[in-house]
Amino acid sequence: MQYKVIAISREFGSGGRTIGRKLADRLGIPCYDGEMVELLSEKSGFSAEHIAEMDEHTMPYNRFSGRGGRAERSSILQNALWEKQRMLILELADKEPCIIVGRCADYILREHEDCLRVFIHANTESRINRITTVYGETDELPLKRLEKKDKRRKSYYQRYTNQKWADAANYHICLDSGAMGIKACVDILEHLYLGR
Amino acid sequence: MQYKVIAISREFGSGGRTIGRKLADRLGIPCYDGEMVELLSEKSGFSAEHIAEMDEHTMPYNRFSGRGGRAERSSILQNALWEKQRMLILELADKEPCIIVGRCADYILREHEDCLRVFIHANTESRINRITTVYGETDELPLKRLEKKDKRRKSYYQRYTNQKWADAANYHICLDSGAMGIKACVDILEHLYLGR
Repeated sequence: MQYKVIAISREFGSGGRTIGRKLADRLGIPCYDGEMVELLSEKSGFSAEHIAEMDEHTMPYNRFSGRGGRAERSSILQNALWEKQRMLILELADKEPCIIVGRCADYILREHEDCLRVFIHANTESRINRITTVYGETDELPLKRLEKKDKRRKSYYQRYTNQKWADAANYHICLDSGAMGIKACVDILEHLYLGR
Repeated sequence: MQYKVIAISREFGSGGRTIGRKLADRLGIPCYDGEMVELLSEKSGFSAEHIAEMDEHTMPYNRFSGRGGRAERSSILQNALWEKQRMLILELADKEPCIIVGRCADYILREHEDCLRVFIHANTESRINRITTVYGETDELPLKRLEKKDKRRKSYYQRYTNQKWADAANYHICLDSGAMGIKACVDILEHLYLGR
């Protein structure tokens, strides 16, 4: 099978972004991750700061939040942003070979036979190690940061895809980057993409 | 990382057994799948037929089944068999490089750093296709067979491991054999095992 696009979903701190970048360098194709914020800002008219703040994040909104309140307004904005982002992902995937990190691209491109769907995960210890090394220390405890981000991505994914986060069935390949290392993951994905 | 043992969990009809056999041939190491039944029979004194019948199967037993009944007796036998099988898997993994298919080997060997834990899955359509081609038609509809086997393996796995079946977090690598094909899966696992 010859793939054109790679959609990488990843747990926070698993190195999914790094794997995407290294793989893109090897394959000579673009990798869209933070770049999506700028592109989406141009398309939507929302400011890049505002998009970054809402990125892969759901605002809790339910019937108890009250109509017309802040939560309802955010939820409406978020749905509008989801739709713009979905269109942008379809457009990028259509245009040229590329890698798209996060943003439910695996789900959005699920009917595209030439899209390789990847999930990168690692155990808590490896991820804590990685976030303190790569992103540096913050006032917040690493475990707390991890749990908050995990919860945020999981609830975003489940809200918009109606699929279970981290379910092997949603991906062609799931890799434990903590146990196997970043390089082994990049090697396997390169091998798969090039159909060797 | 240099691996010694490969534990392959698999959905029914995903070709996990075939992948195990082909990989074993390439690597020149033994693959234990149906062979476990004979080995376990020698160890446990249970007949091979009896073991095959109970293989990766849980008998529903709860407080409503009544004490001393058939379900309770089967449940006790099954626990005894689980323990014998667990010991056998540890022994095989200790002895020599090998591949072990199913039987919760991924869980039993979860603390063994030299064990590569693999999950093979595929969508329903590919699996139905495979079971009718490989195992032939039976009186039972293929979808029914699939659902029955899936339910059986899932409940066996969850009963003895207390882990979620098909959760990417339990494996180093999960592969969709339906989308990628048997050969691509064997290639990737060979590559990983040989540390290339």
